[in-house]
Amino acid sequence: MEFLVRTTNNLPADTPEERRRELLQAERARAAELREAGLLKKLWRVPGTRSSIGWYEARDATELHEALSSLAFFPWVDIVVEPLAQHPQER
Amino acid sequence: MEFLVRTTNNLPADTPEERRRELLQAERARAAELREAGLLKKLWRVPGTRSSIGWYEARDATELHEALSSLAFFPWVDIVVEPLAQHPQER
Amino acid sequence: MEFLVRTTNNLPADTPEERRRELLQAERARAAELREAGLLKKLWRVPGTRSSIGWYEARDATELHEALSSLAFFPWVDIVVEPLAQHPQER
Amino acid sequence: MEFLVRTTNNLPADTPEERRRELLQAERARAAELREAGLLKKLWRVPGTRSSIGWYEARDATELHEALSSLAFFPWVDIVVEPLAQHPQER
Amino acid sequence: MEFLVRTTNNLPADTPEERRRELLQAERARAAELREAGLLKKLWRVPGTRSSIGWYEARDATELHEALSSLAFFPWVDIVVEPLAQHPQER
Amino acid sequence: MEFLVRTTNNLPADTPEERRRELLQAERARAAELREAGLLKKLWRVPGTRSSIGWYEARDATELHEALSSLAFFPWVDIVVEPLAQHPQER
Amino acid sequence: MEFLVRTTNNLPADTPEERRRELLQAERARAAELREAGLLKKLWRVPGTRSSIGWYEARDATELHEALSSLAFFPWVDIVVEPLAQHPQER
Amino acid sequence: MEFLVRTTNNLPADTPEERRRELLQAERARAAELREAGLLKKLWRVPGTRSSIGWYEARDATELHEALSSLAFFPWVDIVVEPLAQHPQER
Amino acid sequence: MEFLVRTTNNLPADTPEERRRELLQAERARAAELREAGLLKKLWRVPGTRSSIGWYEARDATELHEALSSLAFFPWVDIVVEPLAQHPQER
Amino acid sequence: MEFLVRTTNNLPADTPEERRRELLQAERARAAELREAGLLKKLWRVPGTRSSIGWYEARDATELHEALSSLAFFPWVDIVVEPLAQHPQER
Repeated sequence: MEFLVRTTNNLPADTPEERRRELLQAERARAAELREAGLLKKLWRVPGTRSSIGWYEARDATELHEALSSLAFFPWVDIVVEPLAQHPQER
Repeated sequence: MEFLVRTTNNLPADTPEERRRELLQAERARAAELREAGLLKKLWRVPGTRSSIGWYEARDATELHEALSSLAFFPWVDIVVEPLAQHPQER
Repeated sequence: MEFLVRTTNNLPADTPEERRRELLQAERARAAELREAGLLKKLWRVPGTRSSIGWYEARDATELHEALSSLAFFPWVDIVVEPLAQHPQER
Repeated sequence: MEFLVRTTNNLPADTPEERRRELLQAERARAAELREAGLLKKLWRVPGTRSSIGWYEARDATELHEALSSLAFFPWVDIVVEPLAQHPQER
Repeated sequence: MEFLVRTTNNLPADTPEERRRELLQAERARAAELREAGLLKKLWRVPGTRSSIGWYEARDATELHEALSSLAFFPWVDIVVEPLAQHPQER
Repeated sequence: MEFLVRTTNNLPADTPEERRRELLQAERARAAELREAGLLKKLWRVPGTRSSIGWYEARDATELHEALSSLAFFPWVDIVVEPLAQHPQER
Repeated sequence: MEFLVRTTNNLPADTPEERRRELLQAERARAAELREAGLLKKLWRVPGTRSSIGWYEARDATELHEALSSLAFFPWVDIVVEPLAQHPQER
Repeated sequence: MEFLVRTTNNLPADTPEERRRELLQAERARAAELREAGLLKKLWRVPGTRSSIGWYEARDATELHEALSSLAFFPWVDIVVEPLAQHPQER
Repeated sequence: MEFLVRTTNNLPADTPEERRRELLQAERARAAELREAGLLKKLWRVPGTRSSIGWYEARDATELHEALSSLAFFPWVDIVVEPLAQHPQER
Repeated sequence: MEFLVRTTNNLPADTPEERRRELLQAERARAAELREAGLLKKLWRVPGTRSSIGWYEARDATELHEALSSLAFFPWVDIVVEPLAQHPQER
């Protein structure tokens, strides 16, 4: 099943640069694994923000939640998940 | 996969009573079939309104959409679908 | 009477892990008691978040409030309670 | 159980005056019965509008819904029902 | 003149328990005085929250403001005041 | 007591010009009477709209409601009334 | 440049079936042309609604607008266009 | 003084094409006059909609209102006007 | 040109009383100067809050901004400025 | 492609004055470079706030994002980017 996932990163602006890089690195490593597993299909940046919009595919919302909550920035993000159905024109 | 489905019925107030009953009957018949198929698990009425909240289970959002769009009132409703993941306390 | 209870957990991200586990354990213990008492019927996780949606049944909103405010995370949560009426199709 | 009921009357402005009076009379008659039955405790007018705020008491949301949906203007209103718990200062 | 007053208490969750009790005691004492003076007529708890809905009566919004801003929790609350007109059915 | 009254005029765009002028004339006549009575103190136009913001003074919200509902456009308007308290700097 | 396009179809529910099919056919034909031209990359259905979310790519917002306003349902839709920037993880 | 003017055109979709063109022509003629007078400085189209964003300059909001309300589509539009102050970097 | 200015004061609740009084004094002194200069015409208190609604008159939004940003509480406030046009009934 | 960029500056009010000036200087220097490069065309101040509205032109949203995220205040701002299409009247 496909999902549109809108993630807003609220990591405080005064987080020490080193800690931020450390988290960023862990986030990218985990995201690469999710791509590998076919869960994460595409990411876009919302211009002017630290937010992203992701196109995900998972067995169900439970598997999606486990993937999203395994990302390094999870404790500092606000996420809105939208379920996507197949459009008739895509059949 | 489980979903919470919030349905607001906007059938115009001046719809002839006979037509309204006809639609209501067709809606109930189809809803019974969806129950039979295990898609529709529970319905609640939002007090003071013609809206309902439904607990559904479907293979994915595409199957859910086909079920919802097969209901008689579909052309007159506003629907918001929320994906539900399993809560750790339910394992 | 039935209620839909939407709980958003705002425990600060930098809460020491040990304190978070302590609260989580107390929360689960109390939730189990509420299940036992028939108040808490079902919990779902809103995917990508630390929020939950609960299906509760209580004598009235006062009993529900006492149950919700007895949970360990109560000082850090935002809760929205929706009253549910019986749907005609459930009679 | 107590409820706060916010009712917005959307009867079209060009409804014939006679029909409007007929509905108003039926609404008042039914409201008087609900008072009699102890369901409707107090009504206020939201100034500058055709909306009202009502303080109701009912066994549960199902009984409240039956009362509200029995009112003459029901097909033309938008209603928001808020559950009320007893405040500690009222014990 | 009557008002509906919605109060959300934002006292930080990590406020020392002793300080919270001290404020709560002062709040209750002052609320009792407002009842005595006929300003505060009824309080309800919004279930699952630290918010309340109050039915107040005051000469005007200035007297109401003086009453509300004299309560102990005032520096930590968000308040929305709604003016209430007499409903025709209450005459 | 003082109020800020925000009025949005939803008279349908295809209302016959003659009918619109008739209502406008009645509205102005009644508004002049409200000024005379000291109820209506000042009116502003929200630029680019058919909405207005009015500064009113009335004994209470009931008197204000009677004034507002006596205006010719009342059946076609949406009104939001805000109660105003005296500011300390105005004493 | 990439865009996320959210389209809500407000074609009145009582539109004659034949007219609706005619529009639907023209819409699909035009959508196929936009795919051919590389503008329309992917369409999803928002479950339970007649809305869609589209992933588009165009030289700029002007070219996108010309494409969207050339679709048959354009006079009856509400569209929200979101600009998308490339995500660092996609480089 | 400068303003940002957001205009949403709600001309019904089923307006006869001839009438629509007539209004459009009158709108463009009047807009050209406003440009000529230095009131209208720049117009953008909100992609996917019939809305526009305009950069206007007028003596004050009263002059702006007279200009906007003189446009042919005025009876069918929703307009939001935002006042703009000079930015320090533009001095 | 006239403006309606809605100011919400977010000075943290735990600001030392002495600092708060110091700021309040400076705020009042500057407000008196703005009255003197004809910029600030009237202030109201939004009951139950630390917010105010002000009726201002300035050459344009730039002059208004300079006045508002010169007030002592400016770093801690949220301000919404609404432009006001002259109402036909005020001519 | 043209964009409307709404920037709200949330730099904490208690930021040391020296640090604030340092950031402001860096922000202005970088903004001047963006003007030079033709990206930043015009800035307005939203009166009464620390927010701005900018008219930008960039190859696409990716180039715009790189420009905006290179500004000194970026870690402390909320930005909303709106894509602009050419209006027919500007051709």
